[in-house]
Amino acid sequence: MLNAADDAFLATLGAKLPHGTLRPVDARYLTEPRGRWHGLGAAVALPRTTAEVATIVAACNDARVGLVAWGGGTGLVGGQLQPSGPAPLILSLERMTATRGLYPTEAVLTVEAGAILSDVQSRAAEAGFLFPLSLASEGSARIGGLLACNAGGLNVLRYGNARDLVLGVEAVMADGTVFNGLKRLRKDNTGYDLRHLLIGSEGTLGIITAASLRLFPRPATALTALLVTPSPDTALRLLTLSQNLLPGMISAFELIHRTGFDFLAETMPQITCPLPEVPEWSILIELGLPAGLDGETLMATLYGEADEAGLVTDGVIATSGQQSAQLWQIREMIPEANRHIGAVSSHDISLPLSAIPDFIAKAPAELARIDRFRVNCFGHLGDGNLHYNVFPERGHKASEHEAQRDAVKTAIHDLVDSMGGSVSAEHGIGRLKVKDLETYGDPAKLAAMRAIKTALDPNGILNPGAVLRA
Amino acid sequence: MLNAADDAFLATLGAKLPHGTLRPVDARYLTEPRGRWHGLGAAVALPRTTAEVATIVAACNDARVGLVAWGGGTGLVGGQLQPSGPAPLILSLERMTATRGLYPTEAVLTVEAGAILSDVQSRAAEAGFLFPLSLASEGSARIGGLLACNAGGLNVLRYGNARDLVLGVEAVMADGTVFNGLKRLRKDNTGYDLRHLLIGSEGTLGIITAASLRLFPRPATALTALLVTPSPDTALRLLTLSQNLLPGMISAFELIHRTGFDFLAETMPQITCPLPEVPEWSILIELGLPAGLDGETLMATLYGEADEAGLVTDGVIATSGQQSAQLWQIREMIPEANRHIGAVSSHDISLPLSAIPDFIAKAPAELARIDRFRVNCFGHLGDGNLHYNVFPERGHKASEHEAQRDAVKTAIHDLVDSMGGSVSAEHGIGRLKVKDLETYGDPAKLAAMRAIKTALDPNGILNPGAVLRA
Repeated sequence: MLNAADDAFLATLGAKLPHGTLRPVDARYLTEPRGRWHGLGAAVALPRTTAEVATIVAACNDARVGLVAWGGGTGLVGGQLQPSGPAPLILSLERMTATRGLYPTEAVLTVEAGAILSDVQSRAAEAGFLFPLSLASEGSARIGGLLACNAGGLNVLRYGNARDLVLGVEAVMADGTVFNGLKRLRKDNTGYDLRHLLIGSEGTLGIITAASLRLFPRPATALTALLVTPSPDTALRLLTLSQNLLPGMISAFELIHRTGFDFLAETMPQITCPLPEVPEWSILIELGLPAGLDGETLMATLYGEADEAGLVTDGVIATSGQQSAQLWQIREMIPEANRHIGAVSSHDISLPLSAIPDFIAKAPAELARIDRFRVNCFGHLGDGNLHYNVFPERGHKASEHEAQRDAVKTAIHDLVDSMGGSVSAEHGIGRLKVKDLETYGDPAKLAAMRAIKTALDPNGILNPGAVLRA
Repeated sequence: MLNAADDAFLATLGAKLPHGTLRPVDARYLTEPRGRWHGLGAAVALPRTTAEVATIVAACNDARVGLVAWGGGTGLVGGQLQPSGPAPLILSLERMTATRGLYPTEAVLTVEAGAILSDVQSRAAEAGFLFPLSLASEGSARIGGLLACNAGGLNVLRYGNARDLVLGVEAVMADGTVFNGLKRLRKDNTGYDLRHLLIGSEGTLGIITAASLRLFPRPATALTALLVTPSPDTALRLLTLSQNLLPGMISAFELIHRTGFDFLAETMPQITCPLPEVPEWSILIELGLPAGLDGETLMATLYGEADEAGLVTDGVIATSGQQSAQLWQIREMIPEANRHIGAVSSHDISLPLSAIPDFIAKAPAELARIDRFRVNCFGHLGDGNLHYNVFPERGHKASEHEAQRDAVKTAIHDLVDSMGGSVSAEHGIGRLKVKDLETYGDPAKLAAMRAIKTALDPNGILNPGAVLRA
């Protein structure tokens, strides 16, 4: 059993740290974007060095006090706050944002875990590189939290998930020892890959304090288009065609359903569809090309071949940065429109690519057994990652379906699971999906996870109740 | 303490398995390519299904009998045989080679772990895809062993290490339970990444029985060149230039030193240098290009820019498949020439890319303190991975330096470690480098590894003594 971070504990710990490291808890550390939970916390620790983090973690371990790491507070599954139990200490690395090193020859940037993603993107850009991790919350999400959650986002198709962008991490383990794993090596087969175990463990196995990140050449030109495709099946075939024609040059391949445009029209009428008719299904595609390649010719070739194969029926190709931004605005504002409408249930799911058309065909029948809903199905098709979000019919409110929420979620997750998919593609488990993990997770994997958690955090102090039941 | 796989154990286990699954141990299971160790083994198990693997592992666990998984027997660090201790059971998946599924829409191939790499490459090619893992032993190495060791090879620069090519694995855990992790998902954030923990654990945490592998579009054209570069520093700058000009299109970037050509001339005089003068340093570069790009023009552009920057002084560009094969033969026969000469000590090291010139400059002085040697420094420069191999002077034999071998190894590894490098870039730890891992490994990582090993294999039956001391 854990102890609360009481006054005596805080006084003893505070004496070991520079003045001002421990502070009263501000409300922002206790809320999360969807407003589902309110967190507990006796104090927030704001260390400035890895050594201070180690002191804090060791003290929590010795006193069996829970420690909840808080990054940018943007997580959508409640991994960043503890709503019940003995009051934990909250740990924020927001004062650890330094660049530890920039290595242009290696295309590597080593940063502290408190750095905000958009700042890291800027630091890379200033050095002439691209750091490709990109997602809606990049203006506030911090590297430590992004790695703890193995964030996904818009460029996974081309550059991989967050874990694929990391050569090494420094982390404080549960007993307060520091894992000095900040290597900048492309190949290193010296034992178990602790880096990949920590990434995606959501602060339950260690606290990532710094990371060596892979940078990439900036594409010389980017070209965006919105292409109308007859169905999810043709959308997938368009993906295959695009990747064969332009391997490694497709930066994004986003599926948009008519409902997305409808919701924008309903809530943000200034954002309009640039096509003569609102398409049932469309794809926002972005090419990122090296110098010497003519983007417009390539896009025209792609369009021509896709047209001939019956994979596109119309489209808009952006011919300026402004037009490109307008196309992206459609995609980026859909989640905002969703929030205005108010979802009954949101599902961050992934499927084997070939199962997607079948899933999209079957899911409405499952929902129809429960009630009448509207569905906004959109997302990172190139990654098999759909945000399959269920809304009330026009004129109705999500609150009217409150009692059906669990049934909706179960219907969708059961179908996803039966098709070999995942009930958490990019958002993680947090506290929202602990039960889903128990229901749908492989039993051998769950047993291994529990054994690893006990082995690396025997007192269970790290993010208690996240990922695995405390 | 483990028990030997004695007759009673084998009789009991044999009765649970189809006739012929347990067999006497053939000599090939007990030797390894460098002839340093002779292995022990009471019998070899040749299961045909994952369920049979599970039966075997569970029996070993119940009886506390060691189990050594043997893939293709090509490992260079003794991970595939146990030279001392109670006789283990040897496990070979050579009868589990089936394709479980081919998914062209997804660019995924699911194969059993006993499949030989070159067969997997062929299956991918027949479906119009590339499976990019490629290394010298691809004609005998099996997928299970390659993943257990997180194999590297020639195409890491472009496609990543073995772990980066895997979407999911099926594995039998130490207690005989099956981890059904054969998902084909690009994004799946449902808990700790057991896949990445098993990959690279060298058969010490579980037995990989099948894997879902990522396939890639086949480059429409490949272009090979041998470029002369003044120094390791200019070689690195040539790498940066190449990647900026042709991002994602450099398939290989191999460093060759003059000693490689000398050794070929000494041992295989039919393989000659195509340049008028044998270069001190040269780079074998391969471009793999999509359709529509003119390889010769791009290579000429690259050469022109590199020439202007002083990064190349001469070169040969292959203009036919035959010429390309001749250039590759030089690189591929260097390890064979090395074997003919006979190394005092071979080092599979990696370094941060920017540290490579400094390492190459400093290492000879360290060696000179010990004796006079020849060095063949070659390898996957694009990955920071050098095979830094130390040989006797001409007219001398490696055996004359037997007593200096440890000193040579220590001198090189100490220098690598001091520069933030790795003492095992792609070959793994096996049994050869257990002590190196203890010496150079991060203490917090080692502690975590030991805790994980105990948690997942409490009886220590899986590959006893590999990676971690038994």
